[in-house]
Amino acid sequence: MSDSLSAFNTHIGRICDLNHSAALLEWDQETYMPEGSAASRARQISTLREMSHELLTSDHTGELLGKLESHGLAPGSVEADHVRVVRKDYQRATKIPATLIARLAETAALSRRAWMQARSQNEFHIFAPHLTKIIDLCREKAESLGYKTEIYDPLLDEFEPGMATAHIRSIFEHLRERLVPIVQQFASETAPNDAFLHAHFPRDKQWEFGLDVVKDFGYDMNTGRQDYSAHPFSTTFSISDVRITTRIDENFFNPGFFGTLHESGHGMYEQGISPELERTLLADGTSLGMHESQSRLWENLIGRSAEFWSHYFPKAQTTFPGALSGIDEDEFYRGVNKVSPSLIRVEADELTYNLHIMLRFELESALLEDTIKVVDLPAAWNDRMETYIGIRPETDSDGVLQDIHWSLGAFGYFPTYTLGNLISTQLYNQAAKDIPDLAGQIGEGSFTELREWLRLNIHKHGRRKSAKEIINETTNSKLVIESWIHYIEKKYEKVYGR
Amino acid sequence: MSDSLSAFNTHIGRICDLNHSAALLEWDQETYMPEGSAASRARQISTLREMSHELLTSDHTGELLGKLESHGLAPGSVEADHVRVVRKDYQRATKIPATLIARLAETAALSRRAWMQARSQNEFHIFAPHLTKIIDLCREKAESLGYKTEIYDPLLDEFEPGMATAHIRSIFEHLRERLVPIVQQFASETAPNDAFLHAHFPRDKQWEFGLDVVKDFGYDMNTGRQDYSAHPFSTTFSISDVRITTRIDENFFNPGFFGTLHESGHGMYEQGISPELERTLLADGTSLGMHESQSRLWENLIGRSAEFWSHYFPKAQTTFPGALSGIDEDEFYRGVNKVSPSLIRVEADELTYNLHIMLRFELESALLEDTIKVVDLPAAWNDRMETYIGIRPETDSDGVLQDIHWSLGAFGYFPTYTLGNLISTQLYNQAAKDIPDLAGQIGEGSFTELREWLRLNIHKHGRRKSAKEIINETTNSKLVIESWIHYIEKKYEKVYGR
Repeated sequence: MSDSLSAFNTHIGRICDLNHSAALLEWDQETYMPEGSAASRARQISTLREMSHELLTSDHTGELLGKLESHGLAPGSVEADHVRVVRKDYQRATKIPATLIARLAETAALSRRAWMQARSQNEFHIFAPHLTKIIDLCREKAESLGYKTEIYDPLLDEFEPGMATAHIRSIFEHLRERLVPIVQQFASETAPNDAFLHAHFPRDKQWEFGLDVVKDFGYDMNTGRQDYSAHPFSTTFSISDVRITTRIDENFFNPGFFGTLHESGHGMYEQGISPELERTLLADGTSLGMHESQSRLWENLIGRSAEFWSHYFPKAQTTFPGALSGIDEDEFYRGVNKVSPSLIRVEADELTYNLHIMLRFELESALLEDTIKVVDLPAAWNDRMETYIGIRPETDSDGVLQDIHWSLGAFGYFPTYTLGNLISTQLYNQAAKDIPDLAGQIGEGSFTELREWLRLNIHKHGRRKSAKEIINETTNSKLVIESWIHYIEKKYEKVYGR
Repeated sequence: MSDSLSAFNTHIGRICDLNHSAALLEWDQETYMPEGSAASRARQISTLREMSHELLTSDHTGELLGKLESHGLAPGSVEADHVRVVRKDYQRATKIPATLIARLAETAALSRRAWMQARSQNEFHIFAPHLTKIIDLCREKAESLGYKTEIYDPLLDEFEPGMATAHIRSIFEHLRERLVPIVQQFASETAPNDAFLHAHFPRDKQWEFGLDVVKDFGYDMNTGRQDYSAHPFSTTFSISDVRITTRIDENFFNPGFFGTLHESGHGMYEQGISPELERTLLADGTSLGMHESQSRLWENLIGRSAEFWSHYFPKAQTTFPGALSGIDEDEFYRGVNKVSPSLIRVEADELTYNLHIMLRFELESALLEDTIKVVDLPAAWNDRMETYIGIRPETDSDGVLQDIHWSLGAFGYFPTYTLGNLISTQLYNQAAKDIPDLAGQIGEGSFTELREWLRLNIHKHGRRKSAKEIINETTNSKLVIESWIHYIEKKYEKVYGR
């Protein structure tokens, strides 16, 4: 057996090396690559991804899995968990025909271009035929993967393994019922002032300030680094090399600062994976929802909390005297938590964000089920925006054309954003029980205990435990909406001064 | 045939993508990689290199070559040249047994560590047994590759394809006869003052000044970039992504500036390869000697010329007023060309550099032929240093232990440095004939015509023409030492003011 195990580890190790090399090529593409080499780079990334896919779907993988499964590895061991997860990835990857993958990639490339053109010209009809093709291919993909009840299930499973569409639907329905009235209530009140956040915040100072905070959080610069990119992201080349990027708007404090906090949450998740999982397919976040819970926790539950700013506001004021002189801590706290219903998801506040997601989930699942037609999509989008958030887009560019996801065929991705928000509060409330002095610690800029709690309960497992297992075992409860609703109500009462 | 050709291009294209991806991982390792991930990165590079080697040595390569060779591609076509070069690489790679490659890699890793320890402690005996093993393995490698007359031939061929050891020996003997008396003569004269070069040159100003010059040369920032690294190098990820690195010493002008010029020469070579060779094994420098000729040409023949400084000295003086006020152009020109016999190769001036190389070539070929024993190496080194350069190392750290090459098994590499110097002057003299106003153009900071001459005669061919073919066709002469000797004599008479 040790021979098979060693062959298995070598084989999967190569897949990991190819994936991580492709990730480095992508990182370089977004940070330092000279403009002239876009075509060559795309080709190189595609080669590495193809070779990784060929290795994973090869007969060799199937043979090694068969041998190791018949040997009966100790249940609960790293080896058994690894074999289980690779079996799952192998099945998924082998079920989708290579020709379908090629057609999807080709269609997505054209579709993405059409989407960009449609959005810039506010012409939905340019994108519509491409979207129709993408939906057909996604249906074909779902059929190849197979499902018991809903066509959305196997697509969702790629991003949120083990989560059922029915469960999402039920969670979202409850959430909508509770949330829409809350949003309406706050939208009618006088919003806090946040004009000072739109003053001049020098680039270098923003960079340092954000980086100092994430170092305090525990983002490890010995196994990480931060660079500039047009769109912020985090990426992993090994457990000991997890990088984040940020962008800076010199005339608005929020994007750079909260973006940095957000990406550091993703980064700390991957830095915290147990080193024994290095170079296995277990060394990754267990689901996108769980990943997003970590970024949202540091961005919102910590970074937008009163305790946090009681410690960091004086430093912010010293760092940005031009913008923040004459502003007090309370005013600043309210400013960074201002609620304002908006048309664009990526600019949405904490309160309305999940409504943007629900709308997308409802529409994309209806498209797959063919209960809504592509031609009717813009109107359906606008109607829901009006019902949920209270405003109606004047253009499709500000409506149905705003997100890139559908053009790339990423159906099943959107719900993970809201799952992330829900999971983050449920986990955080548990952390606050387990660490009685948590609020006090945050008020002192001390995050060691929280970081360690997250590492032990979530990060270190990588993919060994599912999101569901982690939530159930850590909080003694299934995923619920109450933690988040309670958090939102309490917070916005404070922000709106009642 | 078009099927075989297309399969061949796809197959070799993957090898190129793997090689270039590995090169990006290495570039990142030297520039931005966080310290904690050294081990993972080494593993990833090794995987990519292994997979590339496996693809190259696979039966598939042999089959495709066989088919294409039997089809009779048009002689002189890109396709025929590509098949010829891949056949050569394939033969070379398949002749060396995989076990030997593994033993060499393993021995080199240990040997490199022993060399570092030996050098830092000045204890040759720590390195000696490792060097003995390395020499044995290099002999084994040479035997695997096969040779007609000299064991050094197949090792040299890796770095300088088509060059015979006997030819190197003959060139070097002539060179030594002419050069040693010249060095002795200048060593006895009063050296020019260069104290001002050791003043304070601010980091950012050095960075900009060097970069501005290489942009003037024609190093293309749309397909290149410059970053910091501990040891300067140039590297290629595609014809449209060729990067250079530099290091800056704030208290010495030369390393940063001439290092940047040197690397830009390597970079422009690879940027100038014909785009139709992209993603083939033809898209590379044709030999290390030819590569070095390009770096030396821009570093020395241009960058240390009186014409160059007649244009750039005023700018240098404005950029570095602290260090260069009170210095005139002539004094500056003499300073950057100061001759001072030194113990260390990498610090050697243009005049003595080749003597350092000859010494190494003589010793490494004697070691392989077993006409000198490892135990006698330090004394043999010191004796030759005294004879050739006129100074005797007091420690082995400043003598036989100074270079990393032998510890890594890179026997056959050193001569390419001197070949580079010789080739650079022979080519430059031809360029000066073909471009009558060349000196005048350099004096105006205009390099377009020279750059284009190099591109058309050298760069664009990639590996389609050998170094020998390029030299013969471009200069109507085989490689000779006279151009270089003449250049050196004329230059140092000027520098030493006669």
